[in-house]
Amino acid sequence: MTDQSSSLRVAMIGHAFMGNAHSQAWRTAPHFFALPLHPEMTVVVGRDADRAAEAAARLGWAESSTDWRAVIARDDIDVVDICTPGDTHAEIAIAALEAGKHVLCEKPLANTVAEAEAMTAAADQARSHGVRAMVGFTYRRVPAIGLARRLVDEGRIGEVRHVRAQYLQDWIADPEAPLSWRLDKEKAGSGALGDIGAHVVDLTQFITGSRITELTGRLETFVKERPYAAGDTSGSLGSGGTTTERGPVTVDDAASFLATFAGGAMGVFEATRFATGRKNAIRIEVNGSLGSLAFDFEDMNVLEYFDAREDADVAGFRRIIATEATHPYVAAWWPPGHGLGYEHGFTHQVVDLVTAIADGTDPSPSFADGLNVQRVLDAVETSSLTRTWQEIQ
Amino acid sequence: MTDQSSSLRVAMIGHAFMGNAHSQAWRTAPHFFALPLHPEMTVVVGRDADRAAEAAARLGWAESSTDWRAVIARDDIDVVDICTPGDTHAEIAIAALEAGKHVLCEKPLANTVAEAEAMTAAADQARSHGVRAMVGFTYRRVPAIGLARRLVDEGRIGEVRHVRAQYLQDWIADPEAPLSWRLDKEKAGSGALGDIGAHVVDLTQFITGSRITELTGRLETFVKERPYAAGDTSGSLGSGGTTTERGPVTVDDAASFLATFAGGAMGVFEATRFATGRKNAIRIEVNGSLGSLAFDFEDMNVLEYFDAREDADVAGFRRIIATEATHPYVAAWWPPGHGLGYEHGFTHQVVDLVTAIADGTDPSPSFADGLNVQRVLDAVETSSLTRTWQEIQ
Amino acid sequence: MTDQSSSLRVAMIGHAFMGNAHSQAWRTAPHFFALPLHPEMTVVVGRDADRAAEAAARLGWAESSTDWRAVIARDDIDVVDICTPGDTHAEIAIAALEAGKHVLCEKPLANTVAEAEAMTAAADQARSHGVRAMVGFTYRRVPAIGLARRLVDEGRIGEVRHVRAQYLQDWIADPEAPLSWRLDKEKAGSGALGDIGAHVVDLTQFITGSRITELTGRLETFVKERPYAAGDTSGSLGSGGTTTERGPVTVDDAASFLATFAGGAMGVFEATRFATGRKNAIRIEVNGSLGSLAFDFEDMNVLEYFDAREDADVAGFRRIIATEATHPYVAAWWPPGHGLGYEHGFTHQVVDLVTAIADGTDPSPSFADGLNVQRVLDAVETSSLTRTWQEIQ
Amino acid sequence: MTDQSSSLRVAMIGHAFMGNAHSQAWRTAPHFFALPLHPEMTVVVGRDADRAAEAAARLGWAESSTDWRAVIARDDIDVVDICTPGDTHAEIAIAALEAGKHVLCEKPLANTVAEAEAMTAAADQARSHGVRAMVGFTYRRVPAIGLARRLVDEGRIGEVRHVRAQYLQDWIADPEAPLSWRLDKEKAGSGALGDIGAHVVDLTQFITGSRITELTGRLETFVKERPYAAGDTSGSLGSGGTTTERGPVTVDDAASFLATFAGGAMGVFEATRFATGRKNAIRIEVNGSLGSLAFDFEDMNVLEYFDAREDADVAGFRRIIATEATHPYVAAWWPPGHGLGYEHGFTHQVVDLVTAIADGTDPSPSFADGLNVQRVLDAVETSSLTRTWQEIQ
Repeated sequence: MTDQSSSLRVAMIGHAFMGNAHSQAWRTAPHFFALPLHPEMTVVVGRDADRAAEAAARLGWAESSTDWRAVIARDDIDVVDICTPGDTHAEIAIAALEAGKHVLCEKPLANTVAEAEAMTAAADQARSHGVRAMVGFTYRRVPAIGLARRLVDEGRIGEVRHVRAQYLQDWIADPEAPLSWRLDKEKAGSGALGDIGAHVVDLTQFITGSRITELTGRLETFVKERPYAAGDTSGSLGSGGTTTERGPVTVDDAASFLATFAGGAMGVFEATRFATGRKNAIRIEVNGSLGSLAFDFEDMNVLEYFDAREDADVAGFRRIIATEATHPYVAAWWPPGHGLGYEHGFTHQVVDLVTAIADGTDPSPSFADGLNVQRVLDAVETSSLTRTWQEIQ
Repeated sequence: MTDQSSSLRVAMIGHAFMGNAHSQAWRTAPHFFALPLHPEMTVVVGRDADRAAEAAARLGWAESSTDWRAVIARDDIDVVDICTPGDTHAEIAIAALEAGKHVLCEKPLANTVAEAEAMTAAADQARSHGVRAMVGFTYRRVPAIGLARRLVDEGRIGEVRHVRAQYLQDWIADPEAPLSWRLDKEKAGSGALGDIGAHVVDLTQFITGSRITELTGRLETFVKERPYAAGDTSGSLGSGGTTTERGPVTVDDAASFLATFAGGAMGVFEATRFATGRKNAIRIEVNGSLGSLAFDFEDMNVLEYFDAREDADVAGFRRIIATEATHPYVAAWWPPGHGLGYEHGFTHQVVDLVTAIADGTDPSPSFADGLNVQRVLDAVETSSLTRTWQEIQ
Repeated sequence: MTDQSSSLRVAMIGHAFMGNAHSQAWRTAPHFFALPLHPEMTVVVGRDADRAAEAAARLGWAESSTDWRAVIARDDIDVVDICTPGDTHAEIAIAALEAGKHVLCEKPLANTVAEAEAMTAAADQARSHGVRAMVGFTYRRVPAIGLARRLVDEGRIGEVRHVRAQYLQDWIADPEAPLSWRLDKEKAGSGALGDIGAHVVDLTQFITGSRITELTGRLETFVKERPYAAGDTSGSLGSGGTTTERGPVTVDDAASFLATFAGGAMGVFEATRFATGRKNAIRIEVNGSLGSLAFDFEDMNVLEYFDAREDADVAGFRRIIATEATHPYVAAWWPPGHGLGYEHGFTHQVVDLVTAIADGTDPSPSFADGLNVQRVLDAVETSSLTRTWQEIQ
Repeated sequence: MTDQSSSLRVAMIGHAFMGNAHSQAWRTAPHFFALPLHPEMTVVVGRDADRAAEAAARLGWAESSTDWRAVIARDDIDVVDICTPGDTHAEIAIAALEAGKHVLCEKPLANTVAEAEAMTAAADQARSHGVRAMVGFTYRRVPAIGLARRLVDEGRIGEVRHVRAQYLQDWIADPEAPLSWRLDKEKAGSGALGDIGAHVVDLTQFITGSRITELTGRLETFVKERPYAAGDTSGSLGSGGTTTERGPVTVDDAASFLATFAGGAMGVFEATRFATGRKNAIRIEVNGSLGSLAFDFEDMNVLEYFDAREDADVAGFRRIIATEATHPYVAAWWPPGHGLGYEHGFTHQVVDLVTAIADGTDPSPSFADGLNVQRVLDAVETSSLTRTWQEIQ
């Protein structure tokens, strides 16, 4: 239906939780947004041939493969979408960029700053050849978050004084929850810090338009050993019971840190998988000299906004339901009040990436943005070990 | 401490739940508000001498009595505050007014329209002699409600289209909850309708500044028989166990009705004691052509306000915490955010009554307002029996 | 990719707002749910050939047509999905059923009871030949609503005493909002009553498992004349400005009614397009003898539940985030706390329809359910005209 | 009315904001609670004779004085209630204890650890003579907070993992808000840290029953200079305009710190006067291995509680309206759902102090508790200067 000149042929590496979300986005974006290029879901890559073939059928990819290197080498691939654990990001992304493929890489960009630096260098190199690289902080693309960024940018809250951000989950609050690759430092790089803390670092910097310059923080592992998962453990979130044998948890269960933003704002951050009852509570509050904003992903279609210039008689936090046509991305979807869900951020990510590729502009967040987040995470780890404040480059 | 010319000597009839609330108001008002007359808590009246004496000591009244007629006849009484069940209101209030005493009468004004008419006539007569009469719809004096009235009055929500009001309680949802005087038509006049429905009728008319002109409604008694309360049953809310014998519930458990307001707004009302989990949820929403208001007594220091003239980008219901010094009654109390409670409405009622008496103006709500509410309640009862729409005079 | 024996070939009639939502559902369901039959999006039908062709390309249908009769006659169509305005439902649905096609028909089932009766008769007839018919009350398939139904069914709230339901929108609160087909009685059948009131009638009967037996209600049209929409008016929600000429609004702007449920519960209903600031607020509260439930579509992933059997010390409405794998439909999607959106209800509808067809069972809600809702709506209209209580068959 | 043996004669030093709140408590407590001793409001002390006399009349004290030393020396004083700025607490409290008077001292106990140590030593000494000392962390006595303590104590949330606490105000977010004694380190000791941070330190330790053992923190002063207040500046919260001259702000505008609790829980704290739109938001969340609690003073009658042992199907944070008779202090007040306000905590404080004095037991929180809080605050200041973690004794 689309000629080759207008199509964008995608290879996705990895097909677990993130691969599922990315697939839904690639499938859906063209039906709601007028994309300048037509994405083709060409091939999905997995370690196991049968499972990759099953994923291709289920997720809507034309083919499957177990050899990401071979896929990257193909002429009929334009974009490589990396949905694997963090320890593999650098190798795949750099190879793809060097092969002239545009790259979308899930966050965190890498498991180490060194890897992220190499990836950013590769992206810089590739950019000079018109090749684009983007890191997947999809929560930026929740309409209420986009609106928050817009309101700060319009000066509506004035000078930012306070940023408080929490990412609260509870999926391993139970000490008998099994080990998964997300609890293994080799694969995951870090625990709550990199998995979810990375999101609030990115989101607060995105919303405020200001970088974290220094921080002091601490990591904690409440449960040091856990039972191994029984059966198939390839899924990211572990289910299907546990064995009697136990292994060490090598990542943090929770992280907290104090930060200073470039503009002088005080930041307070927390990321945990032990906030019993909080399932995916991304909470961000920003207090400025003229107003405040508040967001909670548990009510993801809402942004709260306080305008301090209003008369005291009628001033109050407004519950803006961010489903109006004027709100970011929303015009393509449903009438006001017909809420969007988690997956829509991924669809918006595809829209922005495809648009940037077609326009020949740099998509955002860039690998440099991803590297910056990695440096913040790295500073938290160092600070936790040395119990000192750390500056961020 | 105060000379007689500036004091206002109060007799309170009844000392149960309402008597307790009124006493706290009489005691407290002079300490926070600069009253033009100094209330003196002269005498409390009860049916039982010992219990009345105990109440006087506990509630802070100088004397007690069992003879309200004798008390009304005293020269050293300026105000009669009626806190008894509704079946006694008319007799006491009319006698007090005829004796030249200012009267504060708890709601509902009476148990029947005929009684309320007689009381209103007595109040009209007394007014010509400078004697004041007020009915106790204290929720009008919650600051957030006063603010709602002010915002409507300022035209901020434009033409009112919809009024929806609920008063939800659950204290007899349990079929084994005992009979109390509040479930006896002789004493209480009606059930949920008069006890709590009366409040939302008054509040919605107060906030909108518009009267109900017609309605169709229905009453329901879910539990027809209940055990008698064991032991002392003089308290209004029954506690202390039940007997094995049962008696009939002669009032409604719940009421609902559709209404039309003079300005054309559609009203939907509900009052019930069977809304399991709702303890004292007075919920009022008003939608106008330019905006909306929402109130819930379960978060009583808050008024929500939507301004439809704002850009869609930032429009949303504002959660106004009605604790600013500019909000009604608040300047006398605490700094912003230091919330008030249920009893403060009673204190504000004392302030307004004392001020009106000193100023020689009519306090509000008047007996005529109370009569109007009674006519609305009466129309609901008639409508429930005849299953027809009823007009209100 | 699928052989004919396992595929289900769908024709969709209409491609506006509902057609868009249905298309997303047909495209998405097979990727998240293991369907027993594979839906093929064979043909979309519209009145205008160019626009239908454009819709086919955009929404993912293989072909387009302007002749629904011809499409129904095709051998390679198994399901007819009707997304047109209500005045066309009966003709299309009956023809499709008679042609042996399974039918999914958007709500309201029809514009009149007579049409709905004919459709239900046709569905009964078709059932005997193994042909299935379903009406599209998709909000039943919001997980929190499915959970509400389950909790009532499990007896968790006991005997139902109160049902209060509101469907509040504000998209024509502005008197200058243009006329659209939704404001034309010929096409739409009714206004707020049939468009959105129908949903809360269905939802409350679904959740409680009990039918409305009688009601008294009233309709109101606040704005009697409106400007015509300028330009293309085929879209359901009108945009693109207005003309200076005005035409009559022939449907209700708002509806309210009191109802009795078969089990004795009192119902209070309201549907309006004039609740300024409420975008798509479907609010349902059910109070039972043992507990209560509350839902608001503005926070659509949440169900509130009060359990009256708990100790008073810790009793309270629980905010259940209905995104756990145990909640209806959720296991197929994302981890806990990763919310679903408006469109997911349509996807779940496809799942249930396809499953019923494959299993040879009747899908729910049936045309008989749709007819019942139509009778309730009809009774509201009659009641509004006659100002009397109406019984429902 | 009470003989001397059963009366408790109180002298209150200071009559500004806190003096007003304490007076309301002394006046009100005997009318709602059956106190073992009858408080007599004997004398109020202020710096200015006229203003003290006015305060006595307004607040209900029998006499006034300008000489606190003389008052402490009086035989007819049993309790000294200290409501002055923090720089005077030590001198007055120690003198009062040495004179054999029971002492209630507003928080923070003192402006320095050294003063607080001396006061605690004096309290220890006095205790051996049956003299009682209590520090005024009244928020402990909000029923929802008392309930939180009880639920932790009952083991309902298991082992505490996370404590997050914020005290957010905005009363000096405007850079032109005037200097008041609360912005002067000499008088106030510290800014947001001691004024409001002290409360959340006390509350979290009270609720969890666990002490902070180490912390790292930082203070910030966003606005370094402010205009002087015009006119009378004796009130704590400054009003009445400003002068053109400016002076230095010598206290912190905001404080944040990370902490470790004795039981291993991670703490994250924030106190600020620059959270635009937050008036008095005391927010405390505690996550444990079996459940969680959440409180926000902006909805002060509510405690949220999550029980992780419930089925996932129905688990959710419960909104417990802490107005049931079984909740702390509530039985003395109103029926369920009739909320209490800010001032009730002070009344409960009087109840607990009078009860402890009568029973001959130590009231809580003790001066040692106040000293502990002071050490935590001191550690935050040191940490902010040295940028290191600090241990608490």
